[in-house]
Parts: sequence; C-alpha cells; structure tokens
Amino acid sequence: MSQLQRLTLAPAQVGHSEIQLTTEQQHYLWRVLRLQAGDRLIVMDGLGQSWLAVFQPPDQMQIVKEQTIRFSTELPRPMVLLVAVPKGQGMDDVVRQATELGVSQIVPILSDRTLLQPSPQKLDRWRRIIQEAAEQSERQVIPTLSAPQPWNQALTQWHADTSEAYLCEARGDRLHLLHVLSQQTEAAVAKPIAIAVGPEGGWTEGEIARAIAAGYRVVSLGRRVLRTITAPATALAIVAAVLESSST
Amino acid sequence: MSQLQRLTLAPAQVGHSEIQLTTEQQHYLWRVLRLQAGDRLIVMDGLGQSWLAVFQPPDQMQIVKEQTIRFSTELPRPMVLLVAVPKGQGMDDVVRQATELGVSQIVPILSDRTLLQPSPQKLDRWRRIIQEAAEQSERQVIPTLSAPQPWNQALTQWHADTSEAYLCEARGDRLHLLHVLSQQTEAAVAKPIAIAVGPEGGWTEGEIARAIAAGYRVVSLGRRVLRTITAPATALAIVAAVLESSST
Repeated sequence: MSQLQRLTLAPAQVGHSEIQLTTEQQHYLWRVLRLQAGDRLIVMDGLGQSWLAVFQPPDQMQIVKEQTIRFSTELPRPMVLLVAVPKGQGMDDVVRQATELGVSQIVPILSDRTLLQPSPQKLDRWRRIIQEAAEQSERQVIPTLSAPQPWNQALTQWHADTSEAYLCEARGDRLHLLHVLSQQTEAAVAKPIAIAVGPEGGWTEGEIARAIAAGYRVVSLGRRVLRTITAPATALAIVAAVLESSST
Repeated sequence: MSQLQRLTLAPAQVGHSEIQLTTEQQHYLWRVLRLQAGDRLIVMDGLGQSWLAVFQPPDQMQIVKEQTIRFSTELPRPMVLLVAVPKGQGMDDVVRQATELGVSQIVPILSDRTLLQPSPQKLDRWRRIIQEAAEQSERQVIPTLSAPQPWNQALTQWHADTSEAYLCEARGDRLHLLHVLSQQTEAAVAKPIAIAVGPEGGWTEGEIARAIAAGYRVVSLGRRVLRTITAPATALAIVAAVLESSST
C-alpha cells in the first residue's frame, strides 16, 4: 500500500461511493502524477479517514474501500507545538519537520522578543508546507496551524488543566525534557502534550514566570545552544519517541 | 561568559601566553565582529581546549586564562553518525543539525542507493558548516568529517567491537531506538555510540544483513516516513537526550 500515491481532499468532496475532483486535483493526477484511468490511489480527508480509490478521468474517483488501518502513523496522544516564530524563512523548516515528527497542532507565538506578525501569505505558505509534509511522511491527519497569538493569549488555552505542558529553556540548570517525561506517570485521561519553544535569545523572565504560573514544567533540551529551527524538532523528536516507544 | 564571541583557531597558533592571528582572523575580529583593542574573546582549538583572551590589534591576542570548564557542552560519550549522503543540498542541514546535537564524528556513506561521490568542494563546504555550527552552539569540540566511504568499508571500522551500533530503518516492525537504548545496561567501557541512517528509499536488504552481521541493532525512529534530512537529527536528538538525561 505504501507505494500508492496519496491525495488529500476536502471532506465535502467525498460522496457515498465516489469522489468529486477539483480542477487543480485533476491537473495534479493527470499532468503531475500521470495517472491513467483505472489507476489506484489513497485519498485522505486530513481528519484521519482515508479511502482506496480508482481514478475515473476527467473529474471523478470511485471509492473502492475505506481504509481499515486508521491512525497507524499517528501518535497515541496529541502533541501540540507552541513556537515563537523564527526570523526569515526558518518557520518553513520548523513546520515541515514538526509535521514529519507527528505534531497535531502548531501555534505560532508572538513573544516579547519576536513581535513580527506573520502575513496571511506566510500562513498560507506554512499550511501548504504542512500538507505536503503530511503526505510525504504518510500521515493520516494533517496538523492544524493556529492563528499567531501573543504568549499570554496562548496560555489561556494551553495550560496545566488542558494539557501536560512543557516550556523548553536553552541552557540553564533545568532537568532534561526526556528525564521529566520518563518520570511522568500515565495520565488517567491522556491530555495533549504541549511543548513551548522560545525565540532566538530565549524566553524573557516574565514569559517563563507566566508559563510556570499556568502549570508549565520548565525543561532543558541539553547542554548545547540549539538554533530556533533545531530546538522544536529536537523537543518533538523526544516526545514522539517517548510516546511511541512506550506503546510498543 | 556565554555572551563573549568565540573564535576557533589552529592549535599551532597558541603560544605560551599569546595567540598569533592569521590575516583572515584579524579581518574577522576587526571588520566583522568590530572588536576594539582590549576586548575579550573565547578562543578554542577545536580539540576541547579553550582560553579567555584579550584582543591586541592588529595580529595578536593575549591569553588571560585557560578555561576551567572543559567539555561542559559535550556529550559524556562520543556519538558517531554514519549517514548516506542525501541528494542536492540536503547534507548541509544534516551536518549542521548533527553538530548542534553533539555529534563527534560524521561519516558520509556511499550506499547501494546513493553512489554519488561528493566532490572535495562539497567536503570543504560541509567542514565549514560544521565549524560554524560548533561555534554557534558553543561546543568545545569541532566534530570531524571523515572521507566518504562505501558501507562495507565503514563496517570494518564501526562494528560491535568498537561501538554500540544502531542502524535506523524506516517503518518496519523494529523496536524504537529509544526503547532499545533505555534497555541498555551501562557499558563497562563507554564505547562510542554509532548511528547509521540510510538514504532515500532506505537501506537495501544486503546492507541491513551486513550491518546485523557486524553487530548492529536494527531500530525504528517511529511510524512516520522521515526525510533523509530529518531522520539523522531525530536519531541524534534521541541518543543525546538519553546520554544527557541519565547523567543529570
């Protein structure tokens, strides 16, 4: 199955036994993938459901069957990344790697040291990268990208009541994220794990204090200074590894 | 101390109490960093030794003291990355992130599915990126880049007698790297940990068989398909986390 091409579509495109293709999708299947009538494909709605379908040019696919293996590449618990937007093109790499590593939601944070509000074009670009990366890494769920928000606002949604929350601090004498995660007893209800990663120059003292007040554990990602692109991927790689190695 | 600029130099430049600067280094200190006479700097020889020094234009630095904290940002055990060279510019990101994550040696592998021999210019470029990343992440040791070599040849040096060796396989039913690492009992002699990451399309069956014969444990990095850029960083982030969180 994994050799079959994959296509993500809007849930509304899926009928009882067929799928209606947009002009863009027709072009992609015909001109880019060079599919023929009768070729098979995996289509996904990005919400966790997928189907094996047969291409019926020009504008339809016939559903052969609903995929039986759902969520097989998804983490057993939601993993949320709250990340201060890096300068330049850095966020492209952050959202791409986060998607590969299994993130469920990415929340761009406007922190005290990164005040720049990303343009709607940037958000569109990040959403496209996320979708592309989700398809390449063969995920069943497309991670969502939230509206950029100040740290104070993010803390009203992501705090100790709603999630198991960690704030990563460069250097410092904090315990390592892996150490703290492995001491954690299985939560009765599996809350999402929220990981907050700061900007170049780090979180300000005020931001750290407010996170602690909201129930965040402050943790280290090791002794070296990580770039704002490498830090989120490192934190998510560790969380995903803990979630997946304990479920084997 | 961590706010001071850092400069890597050749061991031969370091005298008893002063350091002789090259023309390139003079330019860098004066024109790029815009240092003044009397400004302080941390200089490192890239082999683990560093000094606090004072800039004496145009061509000298006076050694103030040998740094007392050595290897503070280095992992407690050597971590070696054996990595099939990705296509295009991908190796740039691999060596940069590997350096940030604490790798001690990077061995580019020519695998059955990536036969392209990198040019000497590419190797120079990767060495420059490694040095730059080591300075930015405030490492005391500059990782070494080995000559590119076929997998068979690499296995004559990196095998179970010389290292604790893991081969990462995309997908499959293997145990997770973190799971296997955490079951490992402390080795009597702390051997280097060798991590082998394959090319796009994965290792061939023959390559995996030869690795197993050389004492490699085959492990998984999770259920998603990782790009050849993300896979090495993910593996190294997990190894570094295990090494650093068990030493806290």
